[in-house]
Amino acid sequence: MVCGFDVLGFALAAPYDLVTLTRTPAPGIVIDPTPGYNLPTDPTLNVAGAALHALLQEAHPSLGFRITLDKRIKPGSGIGSSAASAAGVVVAANALLGYPFSKADLVRFAMQGEAVASGTPHADNVAPCIYGGVALVRSAHPLDIVPLAAPELHVALVHPQIEVRTADARAMLRQQVALKTAVQQWGNVAGLVAGLLQADYGLIARSLHDAIVEPVRSMLIPGFDAVKTRSLAAGALGGGISGSGPSLFMLCKDAATAQAVVAEMADVYLKLGLDAHTYCTHIQPAGAWVVA
Amino acid sequence: MVCGFDVLGFALAAPYDLVTLTRTPAPGIVIDPTPGYNLPTDPTLNVAGAALHALLQEAHPSLGFRITLDKRIKPGSGIGSSAASAAGVVVAANALLGYPFSKADLVRFAMQGEAVASGTPHADNVAPCIYGGVALVRSAHPLDIVPLAAPELHVALVHPQIEVRTADARAMLRQQVALKTAVQQWGNVAGLVAGLLQADYGLIARSLHDAIVEPVRSMLIPGFDAVKTRSLAAGALGGGISGSGPSLFMLCKDAATAQAVVAEMADVYLKLGLDAHTYCTHIQPAGAWVVA
Repeated sequence: MVCGFDVLGFALAAPYDLVTLTRTPAPGIVIDPTPGYNLPTDPTLNVAGAALHALLQEAHPSLGFRITLDKRIKPGSGIGSSAASAAGVVVAANALLGYPFSKADLVRFAMQGEAVASGTPHADNVAPCIYGGVALVRSAHPLDIVPLAAPELHVALVHPQIEVRTADARAMLRQQVALKTAVQQWGNVAGLVAGLLQADYGLIARSLHDAIVEPVRSMLIPGFDAVKTRSLAAGALGGGISGSGPSLFMLCKDAATAQAVVAEMADVYLKLGLDAHTYCTHIQPAGAWVVA
Repeated sequence: MVCGFDVLGFALAAPYDLVTLTRTPAPGIVIDPTPGYNLPTDPTLNVAGAALHALLQEAHPSLGFRITLDKRIKPGSGIGSSAASAAGVVVAANALLGYPFSKADLVRFAMQGEAVASGTPHADNVAPCIYGGVALVRSAHPLDIVPLAAPELHVALVHPQIEVRTADARAMLRQQVALKTAVQQWGNVAGLVAGLLQADYGLIARSLHDAIVEPVRSMLIPGFDAVKTRSLAAGALGGGISGSGPSLFMLCKDAATAQAVVAEMADVYLKLGLDAHTYCTHIQPAGAWVVA
């Protein structure tokens, strides 16, 4: 979430993954092939499989489950595709088992899915997927998640159809930052948290600046400057790169503004001749839930 | 304020400076010598004089004032001695002139006093002096101050009678920090702001960690580790170096705990054979005010 790199994230109402979890008579985890995606069906290599495995280890290691993924968030979009599947499967399993686990537990399990996807069990995507709304990962070790009550926020989202590998996006970051810039960043993080908790849209807008990650990663994303400039002109509060990109998001005070911003985003990529998917959505306060 | 280096500060109920401001028939600023202190009486070199000068430039450059300082915060203590005088004088002048200026204006003027003291017009001390309570300086340029509603917080404060020059303390800081450490820091800043606004003492305590400045500056302060360990054992929520030291503060949930912590602090310096002044005080919600 812009200045809140690696610590602040939020849950989107759309796009989303649908996870179907079924009890099986035989123990172990079976993963159905996901049509259209070349996802591993070995549970130790599959994001959802690894998350469910972590959960079952602490509950009922002898139970059997079948996972069917209807993936609607494209892997590599930066929209948290792996987090969505990992969160979905542990929320479903918790429901099937009679809710033995807390949300903090579920985050812990889902992080094992993230570890399969990115090599590190980070919580900044799965925590908002499970808690809903805006979530702060104050500390990853030990895990300390703070749900932050946020006002109504609409989201304009664009996914240009280019590939940015998370590993590349991470590698680009400098390992050292200027203290002066870091101080600016935590001033903005403090402002963003205060703005969210006090429902102060002006303060949220003034705080949505990332002086550290965005200047580097935005170079990988064609159209970035145009999207930002035109979105702000259309009334967006602010925004930036979703995850490690290439998707970009802009927060807006109301749905009409988000729609206007989405139109600007679409036009930027039309003019660049790049295919792009857009979403006009909002921050989803509830997190992953059981549909049926 | 620990992890909130350069952006978060708070106002103390004690110690404090008393500033007496009197209109004079002749234009210009006259500064009485301050008994016991070798402070400059040239208004351009005196913290209070420079702050008042900045204010008068925007209001009534032809008026005359006499400043008498009763300094009860020792310069060089790290408790914000210069900020207290600068804030006091502009609050007094604003009252004498019929309150033409906003708090944001007063901070802007008082910062010119800070510039005389430290070379830079920083706002993280004068902002809480003027707004009271806990204040966030989200950005210094342009100036953006966010007062943060905090729950009741008591403060144990110790001023060991050694000298740490602000310039030395600044020079010790590395100009580059690891991105990983910076992320930890802004996770804690976010947690601290959320803890204050939600009156969550547990979260405040978990967030009061400074991984960047404290490890370096604490080396200049004898007794630092003992004060910290014994204060936490006595029930303090957390704390650290006040300003650039050598004073140390600990935040506590109630006055009884603050008293117990003050006793531990005093004993640390008694055992070290170092003279130290202690204060059992609280975060003062109102900021500098007019006494008579």
